[in-house]
Amino acid sequence: MTALDQHVAAVPLVDHHVHGAFTVELERAEFEGHLNEGSPDPIPPWMTQFDSQLGFAVRRWCAPVLDLPAHAPADEYWKRRTELGVGEVTRRFLGDAGVSDWIVDTGHATGSLLGVHGIESASGGRAHEVVRLEALAEELARENVTGRDYADAFTARLSARTENAVGTKSILAYRTGFDIDLTAPEPAEVVQAASRWLDSGGERLDDEVLIRFGLHAAIARGLPLQLHTGLGDRDLDLRRVNPLHLMDFLRSVPDVPVLLLHCYPYHREAGYLAQAFPNVHFDVGLGINHTGVRSAAVVAESFELAPFAKQLYSSDAWGPPELHYLGALLWRRAVAATFGRWVADGDWSEADARRVVDLVARDNARRVYQL
Amino acid sequence: MTALDQHVAAVPLVDHHVHGAFTVELERAEFEGHLNEGSPDPIPPWMTQFDSQLGFAVRRWCAPVLDLPAHAPADEYWKRRTELGVGEVTRRFLGDAGVSDWIVDTGHATGSLLGVHGIESASGGRAHEVVRLEALAEELARENVTGRDYADAFTARLSARTENAVGTKSILAYRTGFDIDLTAPEPAEVVQAASRWLDSGGERLDDEVLIRFGLHAAIARGLPLQLHTGLGDRDLDLRRVNPLHLMDFLRSVPDVPVLLLHCYPYHREAGYLAQAFPNVHFDVGLGINHTGVRSAAVVAESFELAPFAKQLYSSDAWGPPELHYLGALLWRRAVAATFGRWVADGDWSEADARRVVDLVARDNARRVYQL
Amino acid sequence: MTALDQHVAAVPLVDHHVHGAFTVELERAEFEGHLNEGSPDPIPPWMTQFDSQLGFAVRRWCAPVLDLPAHAPADEYWKRRTELGVGEVTRRFLGDAGVSDWIVDTGHATGSLLGVHGIESASGGRAHEVVRLEALAEELARENVTGRDYADAFTARLSARTENAVGTKSILAYRTGFDIDLTAPEPAEVVQAASRWLDSGGERLDDEVLIRFGLHAAIARGLPLQLHTGLGDRDLDLRRVNPLHLMDFLRSVPDVPVLLLHCYPYHREAGYLAQAFPNVHFDVGLGINHTGVRSAAVVAESFELAPFAKQLYSSDAWGPPELHYLGALLWRRAVAATFGRWVADGDWSEADARRVVDLVARDNARRVYQL
Repeated sequence: MTALDQHVAAVPLVDHHVHGAFTVELERAEFEGHLNEGSPDPIPPWMTQFDSQLGFAVRRWCAPVLDLPAHAPADEYWKRRTELGVGEVTRRFLGDAGVSDWIVDTGHATGSLLGVHGIESASGGRAHEVVRLEALAEELARENVTGRDYADAFTARLSARTENAVGTKSILAYRTGFDIDLTAPEPAEVVQAASRWLDSGGERLDDEVLIRFGLHAAIARGLPLQLHTGLGDRDLDLRRVNPLHLMDFLRSVPDVPVLLLHCYPYHREAGYLAQAFPNVHFDVGLGINHTGVRSAAVVAESFELAPFAKQLYSSDAWGPPELHYLGALLWRRAVAATFGRWVADGDWSEADARRVVDLVARDNARRVYQL
Repeated sequence: MTALDQHVAAVPLVDHHVHGAFTVELERAEFEGHLNEGSPDPIPPWMTQFDSQLGFAVRRWCAPVLDLPAHAPADEYWKRRTELGVGEVTRRFLGDAGVSDWIVDTGHATGSLLGVHGIESASGGRAHEVVRLEALAEELARENVTGRDYADAFTARLSARTENAVGTKSILAYRTGFDIDLTAPEPAEVVQAASRWLDSGGERLDDEVLIRFGLHAAIARGLPLQLHTGLGDRDLDLRRVNPLHLMDFLRSVPDVPVLLLHCYPYHREAGYLAQAFPNVHFDVGLGINHTGVRSAAVVAESFELAPFAKQLYSSDAWGPPELHYLGALLWRRAVAATFGRWVADGDWSEADARRVVDLVARDNARRVYQL
Repeated sequence: MTALDQHVAAVPLVDHHVHGAFTVELERAEFEGHLNEGSPDPIPPWMTQFDSQLGFAVRRWCAPVLDLPAHAPADEYWKRRTELGVGEVTRRFLGDAGVSDWIVDTGHATGSLLGVHGIESASGGRAHEVVRLEALAEELARENVTGRDYADAFTARLSARTENAVGTKSILAYRTGFDIDLTAPEPAEVVQAASRWLDSGGERLDDEVLIRFGLHAAIARGLPLQLHTGLGDRDLDLRRVNPLHLMDFLRSVPDVPVLLLHCYPYHREAGYLAQAFPNVHFDVGLGINHTGVRSAAVVAESFELAPFAKQLYSSDAWGPPELHYLGALLWRRAVAATFGRWVADGDWSEADARRVVDLVARDNARRVYQL
């Protein structure tokens, strides 16, 4: 183990985009379903989702955390996991991730998930909140706001809910895609769109006008804005969430930090945007866990155009706490291997490598979110 | 040679997308032309297509099969090839490919190509047929079907022709691209479109309505559906055959296996689709031969998001039997190097690596096509 | 050092797309700004552009040219650079690049840059000119040409200015993007468009009709045509400068060499076009300097589909002479590592590797530009 490896292993991470871990026991089929990001369907009977890069990485790296040998068979893994129970499993994975700060999106399916405080107790780290804009709109709809009051109510609620938050997040990727007009709508349009949406039940927000309104309300609030880009559940259209579609929007909001999340397979495009716009940052979050051993290649590709002050670490873990741990482990492994090779070949100095590790692991996030 | 290398070298392949090998002697200029997938033009006089990754791979790996040293010069290669004659050359390459089952698209320029039985005799393997939808339509046109009868005639012919076939294939990539409405057309539209196409001569089918009709007739037939995606002859528009354009179509046909062929340079996008849709599978066929030594990188990139039950091997060889052999050799070489490194680094176990080799080499294809 | 390494180190390069080096002393902030291709904004106070792949490569490889140790800190680098002065710094970097021929785009912000003769004196190499079409149009506008005379004046000026030039170049990527009709406009359209543009002041040319007219005038002139594609300053829309948008245009101009510049992150797409069209060539110019140590991966990816007669070397250096040197150094390093591995693994012969080095380093450019 080189000194650089030791440094990478020891650096406390800021996981700048993460969700809660499950608080309830799962069936195995559910667990396997959560190892598949793209499909909401059951895993077909002729396959197991353990037979994937993520599944292999779970068996390789998570099994030892549960006292099993590396590469333990899926059945044994499942048996041991059940035996230990959700509380112990969660404490182990969150505690061993080496994360000092979790920046938590609390807006998605929170019923059976740890909240900000639960993450803190289970992990021993600090947790900070990010407010999901579309969830906030849907919350207002459930409270019977009127179309005429929607804009003010949204702004007031955003202001209140972000009092102790460190950022906001939009999932317009899932609702409209990026290839639409992303300018701020006129007030009259907002009234009209809100009335229409609320009249139709105010369920899942996919109205373009209200989503654009939410985005610009968040920009006006001034907190760092996270945007889901690239891979995700197939109710998005991957082609339409290429972050390059955001160039006009990014040109229009130079004063607020924007964080492009995940980005895979558009992480090179994201790196370009992070060079081209002083306020744009990015991560390769979700892509790390889901590509397993190949995350080394994805991480290496993410160190091309973007200045080193513009990339952050995240796991985008949601649900199984394996993901909170594995994201950190695979990122450390990828960075140690990639930077280690550059140092060994004489392209980077070791001191520089350590400095870039610290920036991406921690310091960039601390600066952006003012932790 | 590790035990894994030996396993990879020995596993019999199912080449799930392939065409016939030439039965006629070629001129050298023709041969070089067939080493270029994208261009229908003659190779310019100031270059040789041997100076390409595919050309170098032919000289490296095919020369020894013809009793020449590795890297034999192009002139010597051509001399020896001519000397042995098409029959012997074809027997050597098809026999040495280590392919137990060839799944053959019999719908393209079959005049001077081995058919299903010819492939069996030359190789000693089994061969199975895939029916090309657009070729079937053009066959009907030559038989003077009327616009009013087209739909019924197509369905009947498809049914008859697929009685002993294992799948269907569409090349709408070449004819319309994917960025069109891909829903099933109304019967009246089909009558009208068929009449128009047949009246205009019924040559090359590029009518959107009839192509959509064919696709959905194939879906109704229930056999696995192959779709050419990504690179190919330049009469396609590469940007419009990104498989991500297919997301709406894929959402609408959950019950039939869909096989995305080639995919390069969109193989990561294809891997995403293979994770996101239980019925979607893919290969990096054509991209393997044409990138030569770089196929190792392309194959490695294909093992990211897709569950291991969703990737298949193919050569997409057409014409020179070098391609039938080289596709298999390069795939084995890429997989042995890639998985071997993962095993050596401790990321994968050797038993798992062998299991994934078997899935992609053979077992996934056997399941999908019910061989 | 292998024999191949020695060959790569010694081969004189043709840098087929380059600009002048600064003739004036810079402030450090300006220098750092020139290490960022995408953004016209000042580098934010909380970061330094030295903390990027390009910045690290400057400190690693350029520092020794200025008598500093490899990886010298940015402050020391800047101090030494200032001490030596622009003349000496430029002579060292241009002289040490090992470039025999510079093919110079003289059409961009030439006030404080070396011209063709200045590059020759500073480097000891030969320099050749490429005429930028949009700059030529803007030159005519400053001379008060009328809309009615525009077409003739442009053609005559193009003819005069290219008498001793080796090629033309268009930056329509920055002005219109590629996803527009790129056919030749009608004469009446040109008169109308020219009148409109000239009446409005005739500043920065972004009129689609006049840009298309310029392109086809250049095609008619018959010289090699360079097209900026892929990454660049953010006033382009990266998504709209994917060279795949050019397929219809390329189909229409089979007789003139077209050179796709940079291409990153679309270099695989460019490689496809270079296979599919006999007249299409490409480089990964700008992407080499800006990805630093990762240029090895980018260069490796550029050796996939394109025949070896279709790729060229360029630095796209503009401004700091570090870029003229570093482009050459990183390209040599990438090629030596990539080809060296292929030779060591037995995939390529050493003689073949040397031959491909010569083609891309020099011979392809000599042929295309008839040097």
